[in-house]
Amino acid sequence: MPHRIAVIPGDGIGKEVMPEGLRVLDAAARRFSIDLAFEHFDFASCDYYAEHGQMLPEDWFETLKGFDAIFYGAVGWPEIVPDHISLWGSLLQFRRRFDQYVNLRPCRLLPGIKSPLANRGPGDIDFYVVRENTEGEYSSVGGKMFEGTDREVVIQETVMTRHGTDRVLKFAFDLAQSRPRRKLTSATKSNGIAITMPWWDERVAAMGARYPEVKVDQFHIDILTANFVLHPDWFDVVVASNLFGDILSDLGPACTGTIGVAPSANINPEGDFPSLFEPVHGSAPDIAGKGIANPIGQVWSGAMLLEHLGHKAAADAIVAAFEAVLAEGDSKVLTPDLGGQGTTEALGRAIAERI
Amino acid sequence: MPHRIAVIPGDGIGKEVMPEGLRVLDAAARRFSIDLAFEHFDFASCDYYAEHGQMLPEDWFETLKGFDAIFYGAVGWPEIVPDHISLWGSLLQFRRRFDQYVNLRPCRLLPGIKSPLANRGPGDIDFYVVRENTEGEYSSVGGKMFEGTDREVVIQETVMTRHGTDRVLKFAFDLAQSRPRRKLTSATKSNGIAITMPWWDERVAAMGARYPEVKVDQFHIDILTANFVLHPDWFDVVVASNLFGDILSDLGPACTGTIGVAPSANINPEGDFPSLFEPVHGSAPDIAGKGIANPIGQVWSGAMLLEHLGHKAAADAIVAAFEAVLAEGDSKVLTPDLGGQGTTEALGRAIAERI
Ligand SMILES: CC(C)[C@H](C(=O)O)[C@@H](O)C(=O)O
Ligand SMILES: CC(C)[C@H](C(=O)O)[C@@H](O)C(=O)O
Repeated sequence: MPHRIAVIPGDGIGKEVMPEGLRVLDAAARRFSIDLAFEHFDFASCDYYAEHGQMLPEDWFETLKGFDAIFYGAVGWPEIVPDHISLWGSLLQFRRRFDQYVNLRPCRLLPGIKSPLANRGPGDIDFYVVRENTEGEYSSVGGKMFEGTDREVVIQETVMTRHGTDRVLKFAFDLAQSRPRRKLTSATKSNGIAITMPWWDERVAAMGARYPEVKVDQFHIDILTANFVLHPDWFDVVVASNLFGDILSDLGPACTGTIGVAPSANINPEGDFPSLFEPVHGSAPDIAGKGIANPIGQVWSGAMLLEHLGHKAAADAIVAAFEAVLAEGDSKVLTPDLGGQGTTEALGRAIAERI
Repeated sequence: MPHRIAVIPGDGIGKEVMPEGLRVLDAAARRFSIDLAFEHFDFASCDYYAEHGQMLPEDWFETLKGFDAIFYGAVGWPEIVPDHISLWGSLLQFRRRFDQYVNLRPCRLLPGIKSPLANRGPGDIDFYVVRENTEGEYSSVGGKMFEGTDREVVIQETVMTRHGTDRVLKFAFDLAQSRPRRKLTSATKSNGIAITMPWWDERVAAMGARYPEVKVDQFHIDILTANFVLHPDWFDVVVASNLFGDILSDLGPACTGTIGVAPSANINPEGDFPSLFEPVHGSAPDIAGKGIANPIGQVWSGAMLLEHLGHKAAADAIVAAFEAVLAEGDSKVLTPDLGGQGTTEALGRAIAERI
């Protein structure tokens, strides 16, 4: 039985990096005799919106829910649709409706990539951000009063539940427990955000009591971002609410040189619904159409997809392949964000050939 | 008539850096013949809480409201009082009740300080964070339901008003207009936080229309933190909501080497109430009592206080003095966070002597 993968390139550079992601997945599938069946969809993109007036067809949930995984590019094209409409009409729907409550984002300084931080080399930065992915600050509750007047008030609610918080904390503690350093850092802001965040701290402490071997610390989000820059070596597994995780999982990869390589897995751990794999970067209107986007974020997301489907050796082979290409440092192959003059396709081909 | 300054050291290293802040203020006052009358208060500290069961006396508002400025150290000592109680019982009260709606935080790479960023020297990082300081994500509205059960739900509301938003935007645009580069960057997250933040974008655009000479751009907070690390030279004036400003004004100073030097001004621009000047760093329980805290954040806050009271030359002299001491780089004088072995007092004295 093949694994059924829904392929959604989306917008902008999503359409450019996806072919390379697929090229590398194909190479790994051949080498490890994995049967992958890809099905391509043009929805969940702003082009689709331009044609249909909505981001998704009515039956998207039924269409996608039987797949084993979703492989997504990037979404957003503000010239056609404001970002909050395109995102809430696609990616954020998927995360919520498919209950992908863990957003797992590795952050690792790779060989051959120069960190913007002074004196940091491969091995010095190697942690995961585990982001709550369905609730918290990304709520759809709130509204406006006295709209358009001087008295205008705008309210948006942050909603956290014990159900939603404990399950992502459990995932993060399990991950920390499985790693050599066994360290978990909680992102909080309980000194300022005085209702939800002190409660978040309590839930972290309660879950921590069940993992006596895991060393736990916590930082307020402001000083935590500072410490990502000053002491990135302190971190092993960082668990965070939806918004804080969003911030930390862009900042972390930036400290490793480029967010162009960062992957992410939106996971429904129970397997009730398909999980979704996508690069951390967006559709990047500024460089879209030039064929110079870094495909490694998409490629690495493909590796996470294979690992999720049980093919760890194949996932490792993909990571080893792009690490080797990066270490080699051929400037005709590396994309501009990596300091080279290569194209998206050249880099994708070089990785696929290694496998 | 002297300027009346309320002095509140607070907790931890606040009590250690405050004497140096005052030493330098005294030196500047002497040299520029400024009449400063200091009055010292022990409240708004966790020691006060330990004795009185509350952070502030009942009449704090009446007591402080006639002062020309408040010079604050740092607050928080979680062993005595949880942070959200100590902070909401002191600093956050001052900001709100004295309507200090602008939190102004310069972020500048100083001579003699090594940035954690590779290849960045003095002049490469020089911007202001203008943070909304009274509303937004720091709300006191929300609560819990089904407390202590598996169905527990915790809600906190973000509240933004046109009144509160437009006035801080105006301050930020005025500041950008007055600087050579005339550039303003708005911190947003309108793709994900879909009620308040698209509205924030609208208010920025509306205010921007009144400042045709100011070049405006915006970034979502996740990629903005990444760009602080990758391209700190892009920024001139960054305007942000309460929470985003909090994050950016720790991250920015971290990129300049240490948050120990970063100052802040909590300003009520209309002068209806005293403004408050404090270092960005907190009470730092980990190094408190050792006499090694960097006093420059407190000293620079003193300079901002003098500038606010109309003494720009004296403020400039203070900044020039600590820049000279830093540039000299005497390791017996510099505190450990600056790579030296000096004490808080040695560094404070060296700066005062320069004036
Ligand atoms: C101590 C805390 C409540 C405070 C804040 O978040 O405003 C601090 O981080 C600051 O930046 O002044
Ligand atoms: C595009 C945006 C809504 C999204 C998010 O904030 O979750 C993105 O930044 C991400 O990190 O996946």
